[in-house]
Amino acid sequence: NQTFELDSNPHTRLNILTGEWVLVSPHRTKRPWQGKVEDIAPDNRPEYDPKCYLCPGNGRADGDSNPEYTESFVFNNDFAALLEDTPAGDMNEDDLLVANNQRGLCKVISFSPKHNLTLPEMSVEAITAVVNVWQNEFNSLAENDWIKYIQIFENKGEIMGCSNPHPHGQIWSQGDIPLEIAKETERQKTYYAIHRRSLLADYLKLEQKKNERIVFENDHFVVLVPFWAVWPYETMIISKRHVNSIKLFSEAEKKSLAEAIKVLTTKYDNLFETSFPYSAGMHQAPVNNGYYPEWHWHMHFYPPLLRSASVKKFMVGYEMLANPQRDITPEFAANRLKEMSTIHYKISKT
Amino acid sequence: NQTFELDSNPHTRLNILTGEWVLVSPHRTKRPWQGKVEDIAPDNRPEYDPKCYLCPGNGRADGDSNPEYTESFVFNNDFAALLEDTPAGDMNEDDLLVANNQRGLCKVISFSPKHNLTLPEMSVEAITAVVNVWQNEFNSLAENDWIKYIQIFENKGEIMGCSNPHPHGQIWSQGDIPLEIAKETERQKTYYAIHRRSLLADYLKLEQKKNERIVFENDHFVVLVPFWAVWPYETMIISKRHVNSIKLFSEAEKKSLAEAIKVLTTKYDNLFETSFPYSAGMHQAPVNNGYYPEWHWHMHFYPPLLRSASVKKFMVGYEMLANPQRDITPEFAANRLKEMSTIHYKISKT
Ligand SMILES: O=P(O)(O)O[C@H]1O[C@H](CO)[C@@H](O)[C@H](O)[C@H]1O
Ligand SMILES: O=P(O)(O)O[C@H]1O[C@H](CO)[C@@H](O)[C@H](O)[C@H]1O
Repeated sequence: NQTFELDSNPHTRLNILTGEWVLVSPHRTKRPWQGKVEDIAPDNRPEYDPKCYLCPGNGRADGDSNPEYTESFVFNNDFAALLEDTPAGDMNEDDLLVANNQRGLCKVISFSPKHNLTLPEMSVEAITAVVNVWQNEFNSLAENDWIKYIQIFENKGEIMGCSNPHPHGQIWSQGDIPLEIAKETERQKTYYAIHRRSLLADYLKLEQKKNERIVFENDHFVVLVPFWAVWPYETMIISKRHVNSIKLFSEAEKKSLAEAIKVLTTKYDNLFETSFPYSAGMHQAPVNNGYYPEWHWHMHFYPPLLRSASVKKFMVGYEMLANPQRDITPEFAANRLKEMSTIHYKISKT
Repeated sequence: NQTFELDSNPHTRLNILTGEWVLVSPHRTKRPWQGKVEDIAPDNRPEYDPKCYLCPGNGRADGDSNPEYTESFVFNNDFAALLEDTPAGDMNEDDLLVANNQRGLCKVISFSPKHNLTLPEMSVEAITAVVNVWQNEFNSLAENDWIKYIQIFENKGEIMGCSNPHPHGQIWSQGDIPLEIAKETERQKTYYAIHRRSLLADYLKLEQKKNERIVFENDHFVVLVPFWAVWPYETMIISKRHVNSIKLFSEAEKKSLAEAIKVLTTKYDNLFETSFPYSAGMHQAPVNNGYYPEWHWHMHFYPPLLRSASVKKFMVGYEMLANPQRDITPEFAANRLKEMSTIHYKISKT
């Protein structure tokens, strides 16, 4: 009789942050792929594009013009999904048709005046400037007492729904606490109530001891493939210090975070020698809603590519209707990322 | 002061089956799209493709050959994500690294010997034959007492990760209850405990009274856009009779279901005059795991297209990290689908 092995037998793993399980099918990598092959967006953009609504000096949809900015630039999303002046109201018919109004604010952050850069191609100093903008925006959005949660994120690459290749991210903030944050709050709160310690701090300690899924580490942050990763090369950046939001990061921590982002995204680009698409964003405590001592700041990276620059993992039928599923193991993914160079392939090729 | 309106103000709606909310941004449809435009797979397949592993008589990856079948054909997935002979085992380190083995069986169902058909292009009789296969497979899989849940589904179209355009679906069955089923079980159970009635039967009655989201109805099934739909043209087929699985459908119900599927998928194809991609699948009670009187059979359709045959909705950054979000209202989508013809555009064009 065989013994059960995580690296060869189908199994489920618990996401300790959400309480949900992922189905892992390690043996399934042998499957040939006859399906969709993604177009690879050409990588020959100019430094300045006169038609780009994010480049310095250019006009935007609302009639405004961008300043001649030299670092980063923030403005309100011209096609915001959430609006500040939403009237109050709700609806409930027999607990069957239930709706609530939702106020919010959506912002866009250009990471650089240069149209042809991406985070891994920027210097640690330039990324630190972006981290500063994130911190400042977080702090000033939190001054609106009706805002309860602030989601900082980036969609990178056409296949992640990014409609403009100019390096940029977004911030959506709103009057209620969104689903994923509600789940992570509940799990962290429960753990904290029992142990009086941060769930992620304990998890980090165990991962450091095991050293099977860690990709990179500096003074203040660890980059790892979580044990319960869903996307093939999904990673998390976790702060070593137990702080519940970006507000509390010191100058040294912000520089370390910039370094961690540069190293991770460079490894990502090197993996398939392509500008690696992903959605990434920070998870942190809600604001203006009491205390959240259990919350531990972290950042998720959800990249879709599975086998190459043009073959992604599809989260479709079974995954949408039943349960998330992955093919390669998190340990395999962590090893691949660990062995990647921290020098960007475009530089090492010149 | 404005009053709150569901058709113009951002709001959240409750999914009564999962307890989760969706963010609805009705005003956001005006957003111009400069992002990814999907390739449209050519629609000129031959009736028989010698290289297709689903066509009658052809060879498959495991060395077997398909019979010269004339209706539908079922076989074990050659690259199954779940395997029957998975050894028992689990792992738990400090409740932080938690995993369980998972046994399962994955099957593939070819819907037709003809390589160039899709469900809307098949006759109601031919679709009824598929429904019969689903019922038979469900019944015989449920005879394995270790199987606790049976997921019947179809991924249609390249952009839904379908790797072969030959009309086919899949069945994944497994030893545990997957996430989405656990959520829907809990909500239905709670409602049933309070009201002694099926949640979906009550919901259906209210939707019939309102008649704002109903797309089609016959003797035994209603097709509607749920109040909490996430995907732009998401729909549900709900059985009028409160039964908890396909096992209990009569001959008349199976034929009605086939008709509902034909009408819905024809309307889908007519919407953007394209072979409309989606993931669709039935939700029903777990098996071999006690009684589920609260469970009410239904089928979800999750189609990604938003604006045209080549522009889809991306569930990315905010959606992955925070909360599902949609742009058009469910009522708008239901009206569009309602007004579509039940004659397939390829036929009405010839
Ligand atoms: O089994 P297939 O058709 O090869 O694969 C497709 O459906 C599966 C079940 O939804 C998914 O896990 C795969 O990502 C998708 O490409
Ligand atoms: O806001 P953008 O970049 O136009 O749009 C992109 O990001 C949003 C937030 O994740 C998504 O809702 C959209 O589907 C996606 O295309």
